[in-house]
Amino acid sequence: MLPGVKLMVKYPSGSMAAFRKPNKRKIRKSYTHKKGVNFSDRGMTLEQQINESNKYYLEEEMAVVHKKPTPVQIVKVDYPKRSKAVIREAYFRQASTTDYNGVYKGYYLDFEAKETKNKTNFPLKNFHEHQIFHLNACLKQKGICFTIIEFTSLQRYFVTPASFVISAWQKNNKSSMTLKEIEDNSYEICSGFRPTLPYLEAVDHFIADREMKNGRE
Amino acid sequence: MLPGVKLMVKYPSGSMAAFRKPNKRKIRKSYTHKKGVNFSDRGMTLEQQINESNKYYLEEEMAVVHKKPTPVQIVKVDYPKRSKAVIREAYFRQASTTDYNGVYKGYYLDFEAKETKNKTNFPLKNFHEHQIFHLNACLKQKGICFTIIEFTSLQRYFVTPASFVISAWQKNNKSSMTLKEIEDNSYEICSGFRPTLPYLEAVDHFIADREMKNGRE
Repeated sequence: MLPGVKLMVKYPSGSMAAFRKPNKRKIRKSYTHKKGVNFSDRGMTLEQQINESNKYYLEEEMAVVHKKPTPVQIVKVDYPKRSKAVIREAYFRQASTTDYNGVYKGYYLDFEAKETKNKTNFPLKNFHEHQIFHLNACLKQKGICFTIIEFTSLQRYFVTPASFVISAWQKNNKSSMTLKEIEDNSYEICSGFRPTLPYLEAVDHFIADREMKNGRE
Repeated sequence: MLPGVKLMVKYPSGSMAAFRKPNKRKIRKSYTHKKGVNFSDRGMTLEQQINESNKYYLEEEMAVVHKKPTPVQIVKVDYPKRSKAVIREAYFRQASTTDYNGVYKGYYLDFEAKETKNKTNFPLKNFHEHQIFHLNACLKQKGICFTIIEFTSLQRYFVTPASFVISAWQKNNKSSMTLKEIEDNSYEICSGFRPTLPYLEAVDHFIADREMKNGRE
């Protein structure tokens, strides 16, 4: 491409959206509706659903949660005349945190979101060591820490306390969490319209659980 | 550069460090020491000092605070054989938050850091609208929100509550905060050894102030 020629592609959310394969679920979805109009999910990836929910929560002044940008090591930048700076050489860096954090009613929220096509279990190798380390560090600082797992084939969404995920991840002989374990240790939420994914409902439960626990101490 | 040839330059912190002018203060500093060995500052930029402090706080399990990566819109990526992916075309995006956030003793922290060479005032145009908007939104969610301002010529560091900065920024006829105003409305902290910039001392004051205020209500 010639210098000075500008190509700005707008993606719905997140800088990584460009590298995702076309979402085939969109097509499938339109055939699985049983009756009536269903605004939920709408073929969006989990990331898109969470970003849209965060936008809703921000607009409604309910919470301030943002996805962190992909960390990039920038090596070379061109400054073409009459055009904006173009990064010409850069590398993906290892993140040191989870993808999402923010604040809700004075509480610090921190979470990671994962999709799986599996129907019966969630492979723990989907969590990276730095994510587990970070969730654990935030838990020690009394953050509200959790994961949002989507079983894409089942269209089910689980908000699971980080404490449960960390202890499962740390077990040497455990390669996955079964759907049953996740059901027993999570709040299940349903994809909806506004917000697309009402994960604060689960957060309210975590806060209530914590306050009940603190009251007992 | 040929494909497959890898150039990874390691910078001390943050992907933007590559584009900063050489830090001249390092040279100046070595002549301004009056007596004894002074480990503080050490010619670091404010960003470097905060990153180093965050590393210390993380290691000591005192707080989990990270700088957010620079948001980048990635357009083209090469995957050379036997080498890591190279971003070949990308653009800087407008951030929608401040640079730093995290968790400390259950409190959500959110702040922006700014340097000025001025000696008598801090120009308010250094804060961008999205930063003011974000700080305000986080305040409404009861986050502990502030700015860290370094007067580089004076080697003085001020931790100022976001509420004061926001109200100054919103005044139409006000283009800067005077040093006196900042002194009167901030906690001043001193550059030290471990951590380099002990800003949690100021946060402790903010928390105490808040709890005193809540007690009164």
